[in-house]
Amino acid sequence: MNSAIERYAPLCAPTRLLFGPGPSPVSPRVYQAMQQNVVGHLDPFFFQVADEIRTLLGYAYSTANTFNLVASGTGSSGMELAVANFTEPGSKFAVLSNGYFADRIGEMAARQGAQVVRLTQDWGRPFDAGQAREFVLRERPRIVAMVQAETSTGVYNQVQAAAEAAHEVDALVIADCVTSLGGMPVLVDSNGIDIAYSCTQKGLGCPPGLAPVTVSPRALDRLKKRATPVQSWYLDLQLLDAYYSGHKYHHTASATLFYALREGLVMVAEEGRENRWARHQRNHRAFVAGIEAMGLRMLVEHPGDRLWTLNTVSVPEGVNEAAVRQYLLEKRSIEIAGGFGPLAGKIFRIGLMGYGSSAENVMLVLEALAEALRHAGFEPKGNGLAAAEGKL
Amino acid sequence: MNSAIERYAPLCAPTRLLFGPGPSPVSPRVYQAMQQNVVGHLDPFFFQVADEIRTLLGYAYSTANTFNLVASGTGSSGMELAVANFTEPGSKFAVLSNGYFADRIGEMAARQGAQVVRLTQDWGRPFDAGQAREFVLRERPRIVAMVQAETSTGVYNQVQAAAEAAHEVDALVIADCVTSLGGMPVLVDSNGIDIAYSCTQKGLGCPPGLAPVTVSPRALDRLKKRATPVQSWYLDLQLLDAYYSGHKYHHTASATLFYALREGLVMVAEEGRENRWARHQRNHRAFVAGIEAMGLRMLVEHPGDRLWTLNTVSVPEGVNEAAVRQYLLEKRSIEIAGGFGPLAGKIFRIGLMGYGSSAENVMLVLEALAEALRHAGFEPKGNGLAAAEGKL
Repeated sequence: MNSAIERYAPLCAPTRLLFGPGPSPVSPRVYQAMQQNVVGHLDPFFFQVADEIRTLLGYAYSTANTFNLVASGTGSSGMELAVANFTEPGSKFAVLSNGYFADRIGEMAARQGAQVVRLTQDWGRPFDAGQAREFVLRERPRIVAMVQAETSTGVYNQVQAAAEAAHEVDALVIADCVTSLGGMPVLVDSNGIDIAYSCTQKGLGCPPGLAPVTVSPRALDRLKKRATPVQSWYLDLQLLDAYYSGHKYHHTASATLFYALREGLVMVAEEGRENRWARHQRNHRAFVAGIEAMGLRMLVEHPGDRLWTLNTVSVPEGVNEAAVRQYLLEKRSIEIAGGFGPLAGKIFRIGLMGYGSSAENVMLVLEALAEALRHAGFEPKGNGLAAAEGKL
Repeated sequence: MNSAIERYAPLCAPTRLLFGPGPSPVSPRVYQAMQQNVVGHLDPFFFQVADEIRTLLGYAYSTANTFNLVASGTGSSGMELAVANFTEPGSKFAVLSNGYFADRIGEMAARQGAQVVRLTQDWGRPFDAGQAREFVLRERPRIVAMVQAETSTGVYNQVQAAAEAAHEVDALVIADCVTSLGGMPVLVDSNGIDIAYSCTQKGLGCPPGLAPVTVSPRALDRLKKRATPVQSWYLDLQLLDAYYSGHKYHHTASATLFYALREGLVMVAEEGRENRWARHQRNHRAFVAGIEAMGLRMLVEHPGDRLWTLNTVSVPEGVNEAAVRQYLLEKRSIEIAGGFGPLAGKIFRIGLMGYGSSAENVMLVLEALAEALRHAGFEPKGNGLAAAEGKL
């Protein structure tokens, strides 16, 4: 060994209880799948796995689309793929923005040379369907983008009204489903979504590293009529399709991550997507009951606007949000997250998703949160655990 | 389970012997590292691993650079990162092209709006140092890009002459080190490389999924002076640096892949990079001795121009290249690769790299290749195994 390099101790990762906005706890079955032998990115077995993922993704996304594939990057690369492939310089690109991730879509579209127009709403509040519709009909953009599950605020945005208006003006609909896929209904077809992307490390219970995408036939038509090449070669959907469908070399996809994703998606199919959504809903409602019994408030006012995967809890007056998170991490090895942007210091973001959405975890995180809040000087008003248990 | 979804059998990956151009065989230590618990992308432990990777990458790349980081995509995303961050619309971008991957760099630069100029050389032949120098001095580009280890042809391109000329005209030097890092000298600093990128699944013996990058101080200066934003948000180096160095959220990096890369890099440090290069060189030379003893010819004429990681062997007259590969895959579960572009059907590409570069594997692949060639009607002239053994 070169003397310039110190000796490295064996890797020894802590056992975190992952109750943040993702990564969520990884299922033991997924860890096992990743131990299987790596095969080449052009191996017949690799393409068999990619084809299974194509079918399983259609099921998870509730779509009849067959153009379902995976970008070799995290969920953020899925966002860039969606924006880059369907934007041309000067395209009018409409964003419905009520959180950080919608803002990021706008930022990406601007970098791609689009003319970005925005309908904004306060962080933590959903859009009014009528306003969304009016905005789209007035702007007549080429693309309408929105975030179905806004990870920065915990809001579930209804896609349908904006999507209907988008189709009336021949705009494509991009929906960020990073925190909905595998945990609550995405409903690509019935919502009129043309391009949906997600990640692997939230509702699907896999490690991060891939971005599952689905594309509608009308979006494909638009893609084929592009006047300019997609600026990103790496995320060019037509090259990716030639790879996954035509077996023509593009990049070296990671067999290990594909094995993990296949296993995560098989678990969705075995449980049944509707059962899985019901599990997430039940555990979310129990968590909320516990939170409210403790005298805390959810950021998102109306129950129907809340994500079942990620709960946003307002930080009580006088409590140092960062100190609570630090306590949980250091004393309990629990990860939760704070807010950012206008919500910095004001909310806790607590995820119960994928393999991690269980009755035991609802109780565990409520109990630990109560302990950390007491340590920060806030005495819970009532018994959160009893209230939660009544809903489980 | 939804009745629309068939029941999926447990994943059962075949055990491939990976002697193609990558992925290479993954070390058991790396598989073990990937079993460790996923932590969050903002966890103190994650940043500790990222910092260790920063140091270890400096060692593997032979550089004093401290701007060493990892893009969350495959080696091809590293190429796109290098091109996108250092190209502005209209930038003059010079490519030294003697293979597929150099052509791809040119394609990416064109998509980024660069004015691409090319010095071309036949596939399988290196550049003349004087011609490379003259080209750069004549064109006076902003960027000079070349492929140190051309995976499509097996040529090791000397970087130094072009890099010296580039520095004289204040151009930055991008070098593709995808098939050199961890297997042969990259020598970022002494070669005058400003931006180097690589992958994880070749000389480092990890699964694919990350792109390790190093950036020189003068390249960073150029980056900070950009007049336009980088078109790719996902691969924006300044945002990535704010994440890895400043711990400011950007994307959800994959702890699992970082654990794997750390383990692969620790193994480079433990072995010593010079010892590791010597191992690759020895096994490569033994392989070549075996090939030549069998009456086959290497595509790359001069030994000093050959990669030690990836061997390109000319397909003998009358032999169906695809049939040989199919035989090896089906009868021996061995992956090797063919050529593409002008070399389609004309070469075998046989990798011995990372964990896979061993004396045992040299013997195994020579023996299996002789068997497959016989099956395809080619009788080896002499005893390749004996010739190889003499060099091991």
